[in-house]
Amino acid sequence: MKLRLILYSVGAVLLALFNLTPRPLNAQNFNLMPQPAEVSVGQGRLKIDGSFRVALAGYEEPRLTAAAARLVRRLAKQTGIPLSGEIEKDASKASLVIQCQHAGEAVQSVREDESYQLEVTAQQARLAASTPVGVLRGIETFLQLVDLDAQGFGVPAVQINDRPRFPWRGLLIDVSRHWMPAEVIERNLDAMAAVKLNVLHWHLSDDQGFRVESRKFPKLQGLGSDGHYYTQDQVREIIAYARERGIRVVPEFDMPGHTTSWFVGYPELASAPGPFAIERGWGIFDPCIDPTRDETYAFLDEFIGEMAALFPDEYFHVGGDEVNGKQWKNSPRIQAFMRDHNMKDYGMLQVYFNQRLLPLVQKHGKKMIGWDEILHPDLPKDVVVHSWRGQRSLADAARMGYMGILSAGYYIDLMKSAAYHYSFDPLEGATAGLTPEQQARILGGEACMWAEYVTPENVDSRIWPRAAAIAERLWSPQQVKDPGSMYSRLAVVSRELEGLGLTHRSSHELMLARLVNLNSPARLEVLDHLLEPVKEYAREGARNYTSFTPLNRLVDATPPESDAAREFAAWVDQLGSHKSKIREQLRLWGDNKDKVLPQMQASALLQEDIPLAEDVAALAAAGLEAMDYIDSRSPAPAAWAAEKRALLERAARPRAELLIMIVPAIRTLVEAAATGKP
Amino acid sequence: MKLRLILYSVGAVLLALFNLTPRPLNAQNFNLMPQPAEVSVGQGRLKIDGSFRVALAGYEEPRLTAAAARLVRRLAKQTGIPLSGEIEKDASKASLVIQCQHAGEAVQSVREDESYQLEVTAQQARLAASTPVGVLRGIETFLQLVDLDAQGFGVPAVQINDRPRFPWRGLLIDVSRHWMPAEVIERNLDAMAAVKLNVLHWHLSDDQGFRVESRKFPKLQGLGSDGHYYTQDQVREIIAYARERGIRVVPEFDMPGHTTSWFVGYPELASAPGPFAIERGWGIFDPCIDPTRDETYAFLDEFIGEMAALFPDEYFHVGGDEVNGKQWKNSPRIQAFMRDHNMKDYGMLQVYFNQRLLPLVQKHGKKMIGWDEILHPDLPKDVVVHSWRGQRSLADAARMGYMGILSAGYYIDLMKSAAYHYSFDPLEGATAGLTPEQQARILGGEACMWAEYVTPENVDSRIWPRAAAIAERLWSPQQVKDPGSMYSRLAVVSRELEGLGLTHRSSHELMLARLVNLNSPARLEVLDHLLEPVKEYAREGARNYTSFTPLNRLVDATPPESDAAREFAAWVDQLGSHKSKIREQLRLWGDNKDKVLPQMQASALLQEDIPLAEDVAALAAAGLEAMDYIDSRSPAPAAWAAEKRALLERAARPRAELLIMIVPAIRTLVEAAATGKP
Repeated sequence: MKLRLILYSVGAVLLALFNLTPRPLNAQNFNLMPQPAEVSVGQGRLKIDGSFRVALAGYEEPRLTAAAARLVRRLAKQTGIPLSGEIEKDASKASLVIQCQHAGEAVQSVREDESYQLEVTAQQARLAASTPVGVLRGIETFLQLVDLDAQGFGVPAVQINDRPRFPWRGLLIDVSRHWMPAEVIERNLDAMAAVKLNVLHWHLSDDQGFRVESRKFPKLQGLGSDGHYYTQDQVREIIAYARERGIRVVPEFDMPGHTTSWFVGYPELASAPGPFAIERGWGIFDPCIDPTRDETYAFLDEFIGEMAALFPDEYFHVGGDEVNGKQWKNSPRIQAFMRDHNMKDYGMLQVYFNQRLLPLVQKHGKKMIGWDEILHPDLPKDVVVHSWRGQRSLADAARMGYMGILSAGYYIDLMKSAAYHYSFDPLEGATAGLTPEQQARILGGEACMWAEYVTPENVDSRIWPRAAAIAERLWSPQQVKDPGSMYSRLAVVSRELEGLGLTHRSSHELMLARLVNLNSPARLEVLDHLLEPVKEYAREGARNYTSFTPLNRLVDATPPESDAAREFAAWVDQLGSHKSKIREQLRLWGDNKDKVLPQMQASALLQEDIPLAEDVAALAAAGLEAMDYIDSRSPAPAAWAAEKRALLERAARPRAELLIMIVPAIRTLVEAAATGKP
Repeated sequence: MKLRLILYSVGAVLLALFNLTPRPLNAQNFNLMPQPAEVSVGQGRLKIDGSFRVALAGYEEPRLTAAAARLVRRLAKQTGIPLSGEIEKDASKASLVIQCQHAGEAVQSVREDESYQLEVTAQQARLAASTPVGVLRGIETFLQLVDLDAQGFGVPAVQINDRPRFPWRGLLIDVSRHWMPAEVIERNLDAMAAVKLNVLHWHLSDDQGFRVESRKFPKLQGLGSDGHYYTQDQVREIIAYARERGIRVVPEFDMPGHTTSWFVGYPELASAPGPFAIERGWGIFDPCIDPTRDETYAFLDEFIGEMAALFPDEYFHVGGDEVNGKQWKNSPRIQAFMRDHNMKDYGMLQVYFNQRLLPLVQKHGKKMIGWDEILHPDLPKDVVVHSWRGQRSLADAARMGYMGILSAGYYIDLMKSAAYHYSFDPLEGATAGLTPEQQARILGGEACMWAEYVTPENVDSRIWPRAAAIAERLWSPQQVKDPGSMYSRLAVVSRELEGLGLTHRSSHELMLARLVNLNSPARLEVLDHLLEPVKEYAREGARNYTSFTPLNRLVDATPPESDAAREFAAWVDQLGSHKSKIREQLRLWGDNKDKVLPQMQASALLQEDIPLAEDVAALAAAGLEAMDYIDSRSPAPAAWAAEKRALLERAARPRAELLIMIVPAIRTLVEAAATGKP
């Protein structure tokens, strides 16, 4: 077999060479996400048919046997070919031989070896790894390599040497602001494993809910959760489920702020007198743990002890963000304490809290991690800083000798594009100037799914497929950064994930059907394809949202990113080659208005979106007129241009918390028409 | 509140009157399926919002409390409005008051009272029923009534008095030919309950698999199932799940034929010497229980005793179909037995078998039901005859004094249209001439999902939504039979069922995406929309199918019925009013070829379908040409007509086990063009 080596680090020169080869050998054709560290492309193809069998050579454990059986089940589902789940005893007869060297860590840590080598020839595939976790990573690569061509299902001959760039690649799921049942967590663990994410950061408590059963302090979940919490058995099941997939589970109990739900049952922990009720709104709230009383630490000692036993991971996330200090300010006793201890500001009081919290975390065998507000030179160096405010704080932390992970840039609740998140690198920007030793302290990053505007119904669509782009950023070589390649592979990964049980597509369909009273949503889809929810924190001011507010409007269904608008913009960028497609598309969008409006008028939930439908039609008409002017090769009249610019200005404004994403491309057409210079 | 009474039995005269009222009051606008026995439409609308609460008045039991909680969960899912699951204690404050009179039967029987009354006003809804099963039926009606209009979610003011026309309304699921895990059964139970079906006929054994754990005869599942069987605990769980939804579970152990899988472990039961292997093909096979040996009945006594204890239903289905007699003919011992007992044919030997089987069934407290082959005047009159061969055998049975149920006409595996199944009435055709007393012996019917060509992936799409039309046939008044109304409601029910967790739509999407190697299946969908799988038993001869054959081709994904072709045919029937829509549609279909062909050529699984894509394009072109001739008001040349007729003849033939469903409508256009008489 003749192998041609693709080393990403070699870059564009080699890639250009490959473009000369008769068949497409660019590794991105394999639709791997994340892209492996090294891929060599061979000749031939391993056929996948009903005779497919897996053999386990080398070290064996139940996790590996289960992984092999799961692989076969998934392959059968992926291809529709009935496959026997029996493990082949004779490795020479197996289609895939899995060779694991030795056991992994009893509790998977950030230091676990995740590397693997996968060699596929036309005769057999061999997956080798030091640890079961490496095997799990390689299995996902193998499954992504399976495709259907004109000859049938198969895997192209390749040799892959793969290992992660960063050891900490996480997804935070906030289950406090909206409750997420165990099945939501489990299907997201499946998806995480598929794209090689390895940390579930489980944001388990916040003002709006305390979501874990405490047996020592049962009023935490008893009064702080509306009955929506995980039992300790469920927690153990989810941790086991995650471990089977090579994923660590890091619990977060956010303190001293974001703790209203704790105080419903235990008001004595608060810095102000109670009673307290579960918070129903979104934002930063005043309730805050009283850091001045010894009883606080006695409680936390016992609580952390219980939770440290429940969650085996070595890290314990204590939150620490967004303490507004109001309860501290309003408490004469706390004010006196600060004076007595020479504390000039609330930051110092929070450092005091963290200094007393840290030994409790350590006493129960854990390392402490917290949001970047906890960063303070007085804290010991084994604290991990989780940056949500920017690469700057990560760089500061690394310089000060702290380890850190990045979430700034990865807030997927803010409805930014996959390309936006993809462009953030933990070792670029403020961190780029760090020494290698300092850079080594940057362990990775986490996508954050904050849950103000998500429910079990739409949460998958806010996480996937965009989190896969972040997963690639954290796993693949730094040079893998072409957004075009990323988007083309992301579309495939998105369908793979849906096949795995994620609901980002199917649930979107159901939500649209609901909006048109279970009639056909085809017309609404044509509109919806061009929209995106407003970005950043724009929804906060739009309505008086609470946890009781139904999230059943169009903005809640619409995906974070409009593929149709991105594709249309690309056509407009290459106007000359796409004129007829552009016209066809514009006509379709324009014609849709009269078809969709009756449905929208008949639906209480869609009436707010009518201006969007009207503006899309007006934009389509403007685009077609602009095309006529462009084709006529004479500039459009100034009055026409002025009118269209006014339309564009109006259409660019959010309505019903939605944005029309074809505005920039239409503006390009209008300006080309106005200037006569396409 | 002014109520206007709609009695379906009053028929068209009253319906015509309602068309005069200012708002649409025809009950079919409510999208109820099955249509209730009596519906009166009131004024106003009960609003559904976050304050929705259920109260239980009258008799209470855990099944009712669970049903109320499930109702709230489903309503929350249906509307996207967060709802509290707490039962309201004060009925006056509840949005829906459920009043149950008394407990139902300890084991639900065919005589269970399923009637209910539902009254909805702008202030409150009240659901009253004698039994919990009646309440369950009313809850489904209530949920189907919830809709979204320009004011919001709500339920129109109505008064409904409802009861089933037939007490036995079943769905047979064959889990032998292809294994269906428990989750498939459970989601189908949800769907059955939604359309008021009340019997799961569980076809648990056949030549291709024995699917229940027997502890007395563990080699039944041990050697006869490939490891794919329900444990007794799973069986109990599924029966409990069904009971919670008011559904009986009738097990079928088909005998004396269809028993190959039994003989793998117990060859001594067979009429020929073993050994036997699990059958992998489809058809009628020779292996057959030996009815001449006493040991056979000793085995069956013990086996039926075990299964009778596991399945609480009063009926026990013994199959009895398709005994080909070959093993009996080839056995000198059995031939001698027949001579000794004066049996002239194998039918008499099967009667002998049934006569010895019946007391065993009865001894274990069950009533016997079997396929219509068992019908024989020598059998006692408490045997129920299950007709799969036609209304004739049902009529014969009723005349002879037997009770019966109908499945002829309801074989949903044969890929016929919903309208076809809907048109079969248990009391029409051969049964229409029965006396009322004889007609009363006809208990209802069952849709049959035989599993030669279905897997867990596509089985939902072969059952739903068509089985809902059969459910209406069996529940609603006989006069409810307009296919237009049925189809308009079926489209809504189909989306409701998908929301309930059925996968007939989402799985179709995934199967299409697989066929195009996880690229966008939008182009393939345009083609697929116009196709249907071949009908009746046409797949049997098409390939040498076995249980190992992948069911991953286009024919396995394509829904049984093309809505697009039906809609197009309706436009062509009213040609004058739909010319521009027809042209638009034909252009779209014609243009699709060049877009979809590259995907089809690149897919080993789609290459066989290329002639279909080509013919669809040719048909679209022919249709457009025909429209031109029609519009020109001069007949098309004879040569053109001859050429198009040849095309139509070719295009009407099945290819890749698929049919192009627009052929008849295109033929109408071509003939109109040819004759110049549209």
